[in-house]
Amino acid sequence: MPKFVYQFREGNGKMRELLGGKGANLAEMTNLGMPVPQGFTITTEACTKYYEDGEVIAPELVEEIMEGLKEMEAITGKKFGDLENPLLVSVRSGSRASMPGMMDTILNLGLNDEVVEAFAKKTGNPRFAYDSYRRFIQMYSDVVMEVGKKYFEALIDEMKEKKGVKLDTELTAEDLKELANQFKAEYKAKLGVDFPSDAKEQLMGAVKAVFRSWNNPRAIVYRRMNDIPGDWGTAVNVQAMVFGNMGETSGTGVAFTRNPSTGEKVLYGEFLMNAQGEDVVAGIRTPQSIQQLADTNPAVYAQFVEIADKLEKHYGDMQDMEFTIEEGKLYMLQTRNGKRTAHAALKIAVDLVNEGMATKEEALLKVDPKQLDALLHPQFDAAALKAATPVAKGLPASPGAATGRAFFTAEKAKEEAKNGKVVLVRLETSPEDIEGMDAAQGVLTVRGGMTSHAAVVARGMGTCCVAGCGDVKMHEEEGYFMIGDIRVNEGEPISIDGSTGNVYIGEIKTVEAELVGDFGTFMGWADEVRTLKVRTNADTPRDAEQAVRFGAEGIGLCRTEHMFFEGERIKAIREMICSSTVEQRKAALAKLLPMQRGDFEGLFMAMGERPVTIRFLDPPLHEFVPTAEEDIVELANEMNMEVDAIKTIIADLHEFNPMLGHRGCRLAITYPEIAEMQTTAVIEAAINVKKQTGFDIVPEIMIPLVGEVKELKFVKNIVTRVADEIIAKSGIEMKYMVGTMIEIPRACVTADAIAGEAEFFSFGTNDLTQMSFGFSRDDVGKILNAYYEEKILESDPFARLDQTGVGTLVKMAAEKGRSVRPNIKLGICGEHGGDPSSVEFCHNVGLNYVSCSPYRVPIARLAAAHAKIKADMKK
Amino acid sequence: MPKFVYQFREGNGKMRELLGGKGANLAEMTNLGMPVPQGFTITTEACTKYYEDGEVIAPELVEEIMEGLKEMEAITGKKFGDLENPLLVSVRSGSRASMPGMMDTILNLGLNDEVVEAFAKKTGNPRFAYDSYRRFIQMYSDVVMEVGKKYFEALIDEMKEKKGVKLDTELTAEDLKELANQFKAEYKAKLGVDFPSDAKEQLMGAVKAVFRSWNNPRAIVYRRMNDIPGDWGTAVNVQAMVFGNMGETSGTGVAFTRNPSTGEKVLYGEFLMNAQGEDVVAGIRTPQSIQQLADTNPAVYAQFVEIADKLEKHYGDMQDMEFTIEEGKLYMLQTRNGKRTAHAALKIAVDLVNEGMATKEEALLKVDPKQLDALLHPQFDAAALKAATPVAKGLPASPGAATGRAFFTAEKAKEEAKNGKVVLVRLETSPEDIEGMDAAQGVLTVRGGMTSHAAVVARGMGTCCVAGCGDVKMHEEEGYFMIGDIRVNEGEPISIDGSTGNVYIGEIKTVEAELVGDFGTFMGWADEVRTLKVRTNADTPRDAEQAVRFGAEGIGLCRTEHMFFEGERIKAIREMICSSTVEQRKAALAKLLPMQRGDFEGLFMAMGERPVTIRFLDPPLHEFVPTAEEDIVELANEMNMEVDAIKTIIADLHEFNPMLGHRGCRLAITYPEIAEMQTTAVIEAAINVKKQTGFDIVPEIMIPLVGEVKELKFVKNIVTRVADEIIAKSGIEMKYMVGTMIEIPRACVTADAIAGEAEFFSFGTNDLTQMSFGFSRDDVGKILNAYYEEKILESDPFARLDQTGVGTLVKMAAEKGRSVRPNIKLGICGEHGGDPSSVEFCHNVGLNYVSCSPYRVPIARLAAAHAKIKADMKK
Repeated sequence: MPKFVYQFREGNGKMRELLGGKGANLAEMTNLGMPVPQGFTITTEACTKYYEDGEVIAPELVEEIMEGLKEMEAITGKKFGDLENPLLVSVRSGSRASMPGMMDTILNLGLNDEVVEAFAKKTGNPRFAYDSYRRFIQMYSDVVMEVGKKYFEALIDEMKEKKGVKLDTELTAEDLKELANQFKAEYKAKLGVDFPSDAKEQLMGAVKAVFRSWNNPRAIVYRRMNDIPGDWGTAVNVQAMVFGNMGETSGTGVAFTRNPSTGEKVLYGEFLMNAQGEDVVAGIRTPQSIQQLADTNPAVYAQFVEIADKLEKHYGDMQDMEFTIEEGKLYMLQTRNGKRTAHAALKIAVDLVNEGMATKEEALLKVDPKQLDALLHPQFDAAALKAATPVAKGLPASPGAATGRAFFTAEKAKEEAKNGKVVLVRLETSPEDIEGMDAAQGVLTVRGGMTSHAAVVARGMGTCCVAGCGDVKMHEEEGYFMIGDIRVNEGEPISIDGSTGNVYIGEIKTVEAELVGDFGTFMGWADEVRTLKVRTNADTPRDAEQAVRFGAEGIGLCRTEHMFFEGERIKAIREMICSSTVEQRKAALAKLLPMQRGDFEGLFMAMGERPVTIRFLDPPLHEFVPTAEEDIVELANEMNMEVDAIKTIIADLHEFNPMLGHRGCRLAITYPEIAEMQTTAVIEAAINVKKQTGFDIVPEIMIPLVGEVKELKFVKNIVTRVADEIIAKSGIEMKYMVGTMIEIPRACVTADAIAGEAEFFSFGTNDLTQMSFGFSRDDVGKILNAYYEEKILESDPFARLDQTGVGTLVKMAAEKGRSVRPNIKLGICGEHGGDPSSVEFCHNVGLNYVSCSPYRVPIARLAAAHAKIKADMKK
Repeated sequence: MPKFVYQFREGNGKMRELLGGKGANLAEMTNLGMPVPQGFTITTEACTKYYEDGEVIAPELVEEIMEGLKEMEAITGKKFGDLENPLLVSVRSGSRASMPGMMDTILNLGLNDEVVEAFAKKTGNPRFAYDSYRRFIQMYSDVVMEVGKKYFEALIDEMKEKKGVKLDTELTAEDLKELANQFKAEYKAKLGVDFPSDAKEQLMGAVKAVFRSWNNPRAIVYRRMNDIPGDWGTAVNVQAMVFGNMGETSGTGVAFTRNPSTGEKVLYGEFLMNAQGEDVVAGIRTPQSIQQLADTNPAVYAQFVEIADKLEKHYGDMQDMEFTIEEGKLYMLQTRNGKRTAHAALKIAVDLVNEGMATKEEALLKVDPKQLDALLHPQFDAAALKAATPVAKGLPASPGAATGRAFFTAEKAKEEAKNGKVVLVRLETSPEDIEGMDAAQGVLTVRGGMTSHAAVVARGMGTCCVAGCGDVKMHEEEGYFMIGDIRVNEGEPISIDGSTGNVYIGEIKTVEAELVGDFGTFMGWADEVRTLKVRTNADTPRDAEQAVRFGAEGIGLCRTEHMFFEGERIKAIREMICSSTVEQRKAALAKLLPMQRGDFEGLFMAMGERPVTIRFLDPPLHEFVPTAEEDIVELANEMNMEVDAIKTIIADLHEFNPMLGHRGCRLAITYPEIAEMQTTAVIEAAINVKKQTGFDIVPEIMIPLVGEVKELKFVKNIVTRVADEIIAKSGIEMKYMVGTMIEIPRACVTADAIAGEAEFFSFGTNDLTQMSFGFSRDDVGKILNAYYEEKILESDPFARLDQTGVGTLVKMAAEKGRSVRPNIKLGICGEHGGDPSSVEFCHNVGLNYVSCSPYRVPIARLAAAHAKIKADMKK
């Protein structure tokens, strides 16, 4: 049997996995000789065992806890449940990763009717003793036994009314004693048993409650949002109580060694005298700044500054500390690496290196790649945000803040954007809405998940988006929507926060994020370290230029179809689709050719000699056809066809499962003219730009949705025939590559055969995830919610690559591909290309690059550096 | 460079792969000392090279053919293009597998204006010589140069009119000489070049035409229907001409060593004197039975009987032979293992073993598993047949009974077959009609004998056929036919009996065929040999009983949802779906419970102690909801809900890609009550039947669509909790198993983890094929057709397991599963379970059983025996 209980002096700061962050740091501070109230930590393994045993604390664990308690009594010289020198303890959760406020805490354990009197006598402060007692009963009932707080609050209100006072503090020791009795009666009424007077029974109940709180709903949600595995479990810290509320020489506070908002190197924090920790957090009384402690108690202040400095140096990072002063004596209750804004994170990282406190690699690891996102988008003004109340919450689908008048169609949004900021509000978006989305500051949808059309496109654009906000009830025709009983008319201002999912009525001031100087320094270090290249997914020169500014080293995915939705283009593509002869189809494609060529020229100009991967037409054709009667009539007129004939063609395009339908390379196989036109556009554009600029361009043509090598061979034959002819005619030398998306399970399994034809693989992990799981991205939301609840899945496999399943297929394909073509270029261009944990996977599998939307390029660069550093550390 | 040309004496019967079936057998007969007109075979590898070289015959191949020709001239003593002793040759295709009539043949090569005169002189028969010449020009123009036959037929008609005659045979030598000139002029007019007079040019053109014909559309369709790979290629046989039409001592015929319809051991065939092979096949003149040759030419008959006997013994199988008598001398043109009816195949197989000519294993291999299908097809109900009067009689060309609406073209038959049973009625059939024949219940032809195209192909397909029914007078254009004075309009029902040749007006009830004595013997041998078990997919006691009669050893898949579509059941399931509370849902499920329990009791009774695998609810719920307004209103009334609320629920069930949606185990995870009800029904039914009968029933509960082991664990927990409680209460001992479908790619990849929970795997290869390929079965038709045309795929992966891709995943899952649970039971329950090539794969991968529809059980049993024998042969 492993050891389940560690006294603080037995542990150290490196034992996070076993003791949790809080426990490890309490041990570390103890060993550094700092003033820490003593106690012990019950390990995370004990928590895991508790769940394995069917939510039961095994007898041997109980025994070990009791032994731990005995040792703690010996160290402190106090005794649990003793009437002479009673030991009171707190019981707190503490997991490997910080999960602030997510799990439970119980204070003042060890009190009962007898002990409280002894405690009153010993402290000479009966009011304080009885207040502690009634708080303990209340907290224990709520947290351990799940009797709601409200019943106890009602009793306090009654007592105050009876005594004719307004504040809790006006109640006397006698009142509080009476309240404690009422509380115990309430406890018995609700649960049918007496409140436990045995200190050890109290302790075991509290330990169990902390274990249980690991799986409370808010902890589960927090873990999912922060990629914390559900099987880590939480440790439990049992620590002697110290009291900041024992009078005017007592107090409590929190402080950071640097400013967590700005990163400035100055002690930053606040404290309250004669108060407990919860009073500071609750914000009822206004705390003083930490510097004012120098006036109140210069000795304690000096001691604290010295400790803070020592801790920062010891940990090599900015510390977030909790302390209590009990009758003039300082106690450290916690220290940890402090959370900080993105801005502060960069400054601190750069400063630490400059101060010689961290290496570049250490500094890089101190910044969470996801945090960079906040630097790249507008945010709400902090003061304005504080004054605002959200009225609904959706999914935080694309970060940033947006404020503007709400419009319900893409056309109106585009039109009204000329007169000021707008927010597009839709049931859900479709490719037709792209221009409206582009014109809007933000997008709010009622349906759809993190990978819905709105979410994906908005992230690509860097536009703020809140998706799947079911609280919004659209009445589009009538020109308003409802949130609860709030009515918002079309044209009225709203604000949305794509980083939190919050929706607000009215305008909230926004501020543009600035890329501060440290950003360049810091990202430069990331680039020095990483070996994985970072490309971008970009369909327009504007996107491409933005991505290059963010450090993209090429285009990993240009989705040609995104160029097809505007005015004349959509008309031409509709003609192409509705053609009944090859000649008609070629005529329609001929109209598209100059537009496509122009698009590609723009991309090549923007990217210079950086590699550009262009994917051939991918989506099912029905995405392009008109649905409105007037558009159908217009198309029929243009094509000189019967309206009914057009309708028949559109109806024939219907598929039961379009995601598994007539799309990808299947389009080029049934309509080779499309591949011919696209090859012509790519190669002519490259030649034109090369002639004009001298850039040595090597276009990479990518064939999507290949599942069988013969599919690739068929399309590749078209590409090489057309390309070679154009190049020969041009008299210019030009190389090009033909490769494929690997996005179908069968492609992974047969990747060796496919590598015989493909010069590069780009893993399309969106589709690969769909087909490997059998999940439809558009429909999966309902299922995923149930799966999170039952802990079948802990994260959205469309956002974070499923390494166990999908990852195994990716690995297999990479190995098979290399076995046939050792120098094959391997990349990934699904949404996962911008997800840090997925980027790490890509590094470890040995891919050459990841490709992600422009706004995620810096994230991917940092994640790639993290991956390299972590891999080196394991060597 | 490999050797591309083999003289007949250089080859042998085992060289099928290289020389094709025809070439190998001509070589074998040559070496057996039989009278074979000499020649050489160009190998299948030469054909493959021709395609690899871009449809060009390489110079070295031309050279080798010319050398082969020289050797052939040396052997025959004749010379190609010579005026003294001209060599005339035929050029015929011949692939590894027999593809009768699918590819091209050209006769009489070597003739030109000069040679024809020499030939006329040499044969003393100028009319014969010029008739041969004009036929050659016509055939060459059509087959090699693709100038349609019709132009030449028009010239013949003109000539007959000019001469005032009705029959071709009435034209004189001079007329035919003139026609030959007109034909050459027509050739030049159409192609702009002279008809080739150089014999070697003619030969190379013909060889190329045969190579090309390997990829003509009807050959491609035939290959797909018969699982013949497209990369095999065809050999080309160049053989000295012999003439059956040189006068009354010449003739030609075909014969089988046993009766191909009944299997009876008696020489069976027919011949025509003064005729060419095409005259026999075309059925224009009525041939004589082979036995009549004893009267016409006793010496030749005796020689032929001896040869036939020798060939059958040599090959150990019934032979199908072609012969020609040229001026009293017998020549063997072909021998091959004869196609036969299923009935005959069984009888011959059993007889061969009894005669000591074959081992049981050899006999088993002589019957194509797919052929058994014909034995299981319906016959006319005896009573109904008694009441019916035949109105015409043709040849009993392929046994079985068929009833359906009459259609006159293959296209219409294929189209109308979607709306119900059809019978194809044609003057005669040609290879273009194959798809129509396949779609029809039966085929009725006006012309042709037992070896006509219609007869041979129908027997191969196991489709009922009445051939040569001259009483039928077609008025195809006008849309009817007459039998005497009975008029039958196209689309009216008729019935035909392929075992008697009878034709009836109107429908006649059909009943299932009884399995005759040889069937039991033969299938007994298959069961002795095979190690792979065969189960059935059955949802009702009736299906289960039928399957047991066919030899099923258990149920591999009971689709519980198929029980849900009737009257009260569909109402209850709709209530379940539209429930908004768990209580409502449980109430609806409570209504379903007794029905489900009853169903399972029926299944357990039918299956006795054989294993029964019951799959839990699988399809997306929207498949059950009403669409008609009245049904929606009824449902609303029953549930006491608003109609709009019901409509909202139905609308919410909509999914973009239902195949990847809310189905399978996902239903049980979101609605655990469903799994509870189904577990209760299964276990209670098993207990009831065990109590009643004493059968030791071990129900196998199968959880569908698992992609992650935690899904299975979740549902398994429900199953074991509910089942154990019921069993404990019942006081009866009962074991049960919980397993899973493996039908999602991720399940294959993580099969080791899944095997930790699953006691068995059943591969659902339908869904696995969908997700591995990214094909939607409901939409894939259009894509597959294009893929067949471009030879990207050669068979429907939903009918024949894709061993390269899907098969690799199956293999991986089987290995991973066994690595964790060595005795895990493995089976397959997709459509592929009844496909012989897929069954062989399952045997080789080491599955324990296949499961297929009841009518495919015998096929799977034989296929499993084949698989075992073939695997043993490879050892």
